[in-house]
Amino acid sequence: MIIAVVGMGIIGGSFCKAIKKNTDHYVIGLNRTKSTLEKALADGAIDKIGDRNSLSKADVIILALYPQAAIDFIEKNGSYIKKDAVVTDSAGIKSEICPKLVKLSEKFGFEFVGSHPMAGKEINGYEASDADLFNGASYIIVPCGADDRAVKTLSDLAIEIKFGMIKISNPEEHDRMIAFTSQLPHILACAYVMSPCCINHKGFSAGSYRDVSRVANINAELWSELFLENREPLIGELETLRDNILAITDAVKANDKERIEELLEKAHKTKEALGE
Amino acid sequence: MIIAVVGMGIIGGSFCKAIKKNTDHYVIGLNRTKSTLEKALADGAIDKIGDRNSLSKADVIILALYPQAAIDFIEKNGSYIKKDAVVTDSAGIKSEICPKLVKLSEKFGFEFVGSHPMAGKEINGYEASDADLFNGASYIIVPCGADDRAVKTLSDLAIEIKFGMIKISNPEEHDRMIAFTSQLPHILACAYVMSPCCINHKGFSAGSYRDVSRVANINAELWSELFLENREPLIGELETLRDNILAITDAVKANDKERIEELLEKAHKTKEALGE
Repeated sequence: MIIAVVGMGIIGGSFCKAIKKNTDHYVIGLNRTKSTLEKALADGAIDKIGDRNSLSKADVIILALYPQAAIDFIEKNGSYIKKDAVVTDSAGIKSEICPKLVKLSEKFGFEFVGSHPMAGKEINGYEASDADLFNGASYIIVPCGADDRAVKTLSDLAIEIKFGMIKISNPEEHDRMIAFTSQLPHILACAYVMSPCCINHKGFSAGSYRDVSRVANINAELWSELFLENREPLIGELETLRDNILAITDAVKANDKERIEELLEKAHKTKEALGE
Repeated sequence: MIIAVVGMGIIGGSFCKAIKKNTDHYVIGLNRTKSTLEKALADGAIDKIGDRNSLSKADVIILALYPQAAIDFIEKNGSYIKKDAVVTDSAGIKSEICPKLVKLSEKFGFEFVGSHPMAGKEINGYEASDADLFNGASYIIVPCGADDRAVKTLSDLAIEIKFGMIKISNPEEHDRMIAFTSQLPHILACAYVMSPCCINHKGFSAGSYRDVSRVANINAELWSELFLENREPLIGELETLRDNILAITDAVKANDKERIEELLEKAHKTKEALGE
């Protein structure tokens, strides 16, 4: 297949590198900044530097852009896309953008399948991209009414490039779960490092500090967009968390050892049952 | 030196193994459950199974017990300890127990130095102990008025068994910092996994879920004791965190992208400045 990857950040760059490492597909890279494409070409991450005209040759187009930017890109360049090409995004939210991309797919005649690779790092940009970033990770596919062929094309590709599992979902379920598994930990990490104690942590900290604070090294522009595009589920999770922290806080304030143990034991059992 | 380690959990067991791996000191193990000592002896983690009579031979005694159990142990067995022996605990809180252990040290004539190895795992017990657990970790020493010789004995031993740094502190500072670096992440992890979403996380989760939830596999009995023995600093940190989560929540509710970005950017800069 000929695969066009739009956006050479950590996700786009990793798709290119993983496809070149694991498959024989031909990869065309598109990016706003030309120098990044030249670097990617020199690295062997892409076979060719592309532009909007290259879109007509691509069997699969992976949009590795911020959510709104993905929509803008298709609005502007959708007419260059081959009929029946499979187009996917890689955005961390779905309800807000999938319907818009479905509508654009109907207008321009390609097949849109939403997707979200559950992998990342606490650093960003092409420099952080990695051929092994997706190894063993989950690839969430949100079909949005696309035909089986299109879904199979993407899931086969995901397995080829070493994703560990395919999870088929819908926009609402995806967003509700992502609010919990991804957005909430990012807000927690940020709120955590805002403590005046944080600056003096060295010598007093170990693994639990490191783990909670890791993703505080956040891309503020991207994540503030993601949070707002998933406001309702996120606010729901924030309130659930607030209540659960409050329950423990109240038990500590009340000096109620039995109640604290009961709450911790509940968490322990949940975590133990999940195994990971 | 002859070193007695009291308690064969993850911390005590790891002290024994690290001392045998890295030094020529002679290690005597004490523990309530005899079978664990037999296992430790068979593993070469200790040179001898000891009892209260062995305490009179030890130059250094490491109490690897729950905080209150460490006090109880000394109250009961303090008269068996050699004059001038260096006794240390390994408890995660200091203000509540150091003064009591100092008082007991004056009564029985040994030197007490508080300490806290900043290492652990999300699993417990002798089976989880590891000769390399302390590699590169911080060893917090809280001298509590002990003489320089005693402090040097402990810090030299810590470096011998591969701790990465020695941090000298006092009980108040220690407890304030530990409330932030260790206790708060444990409460967060527990509150986090209590979300009804948690049970369905598979396929929707990656590194940020894994990191925040890791220590939810908590020892409820130990940590409820630690939380109550450090109530005030912990409640302070819980309230600071609540306010910081609330600030982000309010900005999300208000659809205020600029304010969210500003808060995330503040966290990002803090984390980036710390480097880790």
